[in-house]
Amino acid sequence: MIRRETEMTEKPKGDIDAFFEPQSIAAIGSMREAMFGGYVVIKNLLDFGFSGQIYGVNPGVDEVLGVKVYPDIREIPGVVDLTIIMVAAHRVPSIIASCVEKGVKAAVIAADGFAETGEEGAKLQREVIEIARRGKLRLIGPNTVGCTNPAVGLVPCTYALGYEQIRTGSIALAAQTGLIGPQAIPFEDLQYGISKICDFGNKCDVNEADLLAYLADDPQTKVIAMHLEDIRSGHRFIDKAAEVVPQKPVLIFKSGRTKESAKAVASHTGSLAGEYQVYDGALKQAGVIRVNTWSQLFDFAKVLSSQPLPKGNRVAIVTTTGGMGIVAVDTAVQSGLSIAELSPETLQKLGEFHHSMASNPIDVGPALPFWSDFSAFWRQIVEMVLNDSNVDCVAAVAYTSPAVALNRFDVEAVAELGRKLSKPITVWIYGTKFSLLEVLTRDIEDLDIPVYTEFKVALEALGAAFEYSKTKARGFMKG
Amino acid sequence: MIRRETEMTEKPKGDIDAFFEPQSIAAIGSMREAMFGGYVVIKNLLDFGFSGQIYGVNPGVDEVLGVKVYPDIREIPGVVDLTIIMVAAHRVPSIIASCVEKGVKAAVIAADGFAETGEEGAKLQREVIEIARRGKLRLIGPNTVGCTNPAVGLVPCTYALGYEQIRTGSIALAAQTGLIGPQAIPFEDLQYGISKICDFGNKCDVNEADLLAYLADDPQTKVIAMHLEDIRSGHRFIDKAAEVVPQKPVLIFKSGRTKESAKAVASHTGSLAGEYQVYDGALKQAGVIRVNTWSQLFDFAKVLSSQPLPKGNRVAIVTTTGGMGIVAVDTAVQSGLSIAELSPETLQKLGEFHHSMASNPIDVGPALPFWSDFSAFWRQIVEMVLNDSNVDCVAAVAYTSPAVALNRFDVEAVAELGRKLSKPITVWIYGTKFSLLEVLTRDIEDLDIPVYTEFKVALEALGAAFEYSKTKARGFMKG
Repeated sequence: MIRRETEMTEKPKGDIDAFFEPQSIAAIGSMREAMFGGYVVIKNLLDFGFSGQIYGVNPGVDEVLGVKVYPDIREIPGVVDLTIIMVAAHRVPSIIASCVEKGVKAAVIAADGFAETGEEGAKLQREVIEIARRGKLRLIGPNTVGCTNPAVGLVPCTYALGYEQIRTGSIALAAQTGLIGPQAIPFEDLQYGISKICDFGNKCDVNEADLLAYLADDPQTKVIAMHLEDIRSGHRFIDKAAEVVPQKPVLIFKSGRTKESAKAVASHTGSLAGEYQVYDGALKQAGVIRVNTWSQLFDFAKVLSSQPLPKGNRVAIVTTTGGMGIVAVDTAVQSGLSIAELSPETLQKLGEFHHSMASNPIDVGPALPFWSDFSAFWRQIVEMVLNDSNVDCVAAVAYTSPAVALNRFDVEAVAELGRKLSKPITVWIYGTKFSLLEVLTRDIEDLDIPVYTEFKVALEALGAAFEYSKTKARGFMKG
Repeated sequence: MIRRETEMTEKPKGDIDAFFEPQSIAAIGSMREAMFGGYVVIKNLLDFGFSGQIYGVNPGVDEVLGVKVYPDIREIPGVVDLTIIMVAAHRVPSIIASCVEKGVKAAVIAADGFAETGEEGAKLQREVIEIARRGKLRLIGPNTVGCTNPAVGLVPCTYALGYEQIRTGSIALAAQTGLIGPQAIPFEDLQYGISKICDFGNKCDVNEADLLAYLADDPQTKVIAMHLEDIRSGHRFIDKAAEVVPQKPVLIFKSGRTKESAKAVASHTGSLAGEYQVYDGALKQAGVIRVNTWSQLFDFAKVLSSQPLPKGNRVAIVTTTGGMGIVAVDTAVQSGLSIAELSPETLQKLGEFHHSMASNPIDVGPALPFWSDFSAFWRQIVEMVLNDSNVDCVAAVAYTSPAVALNRFDVEAVAELGRKLSKPITVWIYGTKFSLLEVLTRDIEDLDIPVYTEFKVALEALGAAFEYSKTKARGFMKG
């Protein structure tokens, strides 16, 4: 059974703003240079160019990295919208009380040692909630790495990062694990365009339903990708999902699927995992795209955020290897796509290049040795299949070696044609060197075509896009 | 139904040697500098330091990269063991005839345009087989990138590579696609220890059963990983697999699983894909590890080639994030592993570090901020669980950021302890930067612990190792 909300029945959703668009932040905790703590939070905010006011709170330090540190939050002269709390669990209630007194709107409790540890910690957690609720202070956590909003340089990550940029975009990522945070994903090296990131932690106050409601109204967010171990506000979440799905795709990876993991869920975030089948059925009914692995959250969000939705499920597969063409066909069929029957005109034109190209999958491999300009050839073929009215979407290979390169001009032309025709394109990349693969991946994704290192995944991503386009076309109504 | 062999019923298996250990090679084809052809083959052989004699064959060129080029193979003064043939399909019969006349033992026909193109090509292919058979010349291909044996610098790849090293080791890779070749996998950047690589192509002569028999006897090969679209010599292959499995694990990824892909298989290598269920049942009966994706071939081969086999299925999971610990538990259970119940002594010692560590999965994340030496801490924990007699195998996290590093000394100690206790270890890696991830992955794999970018896969790999250890323990007899 999906649980009814227990903690708070009515919560003003505007409150969530302070977590993502604060004008001022205070980091409360150790100011020692280390891999974790207040020093790191301040450093990350400075590195990412946070546009608001930054304060430190620590009784033993006056200043850190040019930022003034106060012994107590109540001594800060200006307004504080958001605090990041990194102190031992037993000290959290008094810190929360001081935040309430100061009129802070939102607090991220990074500290652990609460409901996830057993009854004593659960009691401490309840105490914290009581204090916060009385003071209208909203909480994320405890046991969290918090929130990120790269558009305003809000990266108050509690761990050292060593990079200073996250591409701004339309994907919102939320998870019941710190693995979603900038300390765990090399965002600077990836091309995900991010709107918001949130680690729920123990979800003592703000939970998946609150965040879903916030992201539904967030104009920057176009795709919502969530990892959940449990669903706290079951009915509210499912209702909200059904409401948001016609506007924005919602991807969910539910972990804790076996009886063995249910126990681990309890000691991770103090939650009950619940019956997977119950969740799965309810999420499906709400039109949510349920994914089966952590990486699919990102793989599918990429295509949904960057490419148009396909109008049908007929896929053209452009490959350099017949062997992977077959794997692509297997995956396409298993992902709800059909293998496009190319028009006679397209087939004739393709066959003039090489016999291997006169069917779908289109194997350009045997023709490659005859082409000095791989990039122009690749563009010609991909454009040809995009222009075929029997094709709704295209999965194309990109190969790179010292002798073969795609240039930006040709990739851009293909990207534009796909958008013009409203036909999504995904790319599978392979090649001879990591360094070449890294450069080409970045170049192609920079033009908003998603790139995958397995052909299989390029097809699964198109399958997810088609699934969502069907849901959207049905004008999905809340169940 | 598994097909009985049609082409040749008895083949001397010693003949296969010439493909992998030739004393002399002739590249027959264009000697123009390009991305494909004879020039590239000669360049790759030189770059990888092939220890035997190299010749070129082309009527219009005298010399290439210091290697003498002859107008006709028959004019080469010395013995030629192996030829790589890159000429238009219609010229292949006469070239093969000249190879027979010269007394060549083995020929790789890289050229395409044979059975994969239809009846006319199939006829040409039969003609080639006839000539070769009469002359006792063994063939790999047509439509192949050929064979590789890095131990002797035999990398006669037909495509430009841009790198000069493949780590020598015990994994044999074979596939019905060129995607297995050094032009498609960045071997220099990876740590796979390779014994032999073979792309079967159209399998007009040497097929999967011949190669399996060869690899069974190859002392360098300890793990056999194969991709197949069809099985030509069905009964012989299954019998040989059942025979080799007690000595060496055999991994097989069978593609062409849907009716839609069967058509594509025919136009790829001129094969019939056959019923997947029939293959799967027969392979299972032979004790083969059947994998479901191309990448699992490599992921599972890595652990089987580098780690001891587990004596049981009880896994300890060391994580820095509770969330991924739960995903790991789900995957472990789904992969045939059980979550080890750590001994009371181990649990007590772990709990002294942090409450989050007193259960399996062992979440070291919350304890990390208190440790200045992450590497020593990591080693201590992994050694502790390895030493627990309730644990048969370990999946451990490795995290890297500018503030956190594992050093070689600690990883080596863990690797040695695992080997001593005969308990396999796999590592899941994540971190803040591609560059850091690349270095740490290489460092750990260099010490023969396999590394994966998803925790899920680290568990699946241990599951495959356990599956094989059970098969081996049964002293698997041929069905």
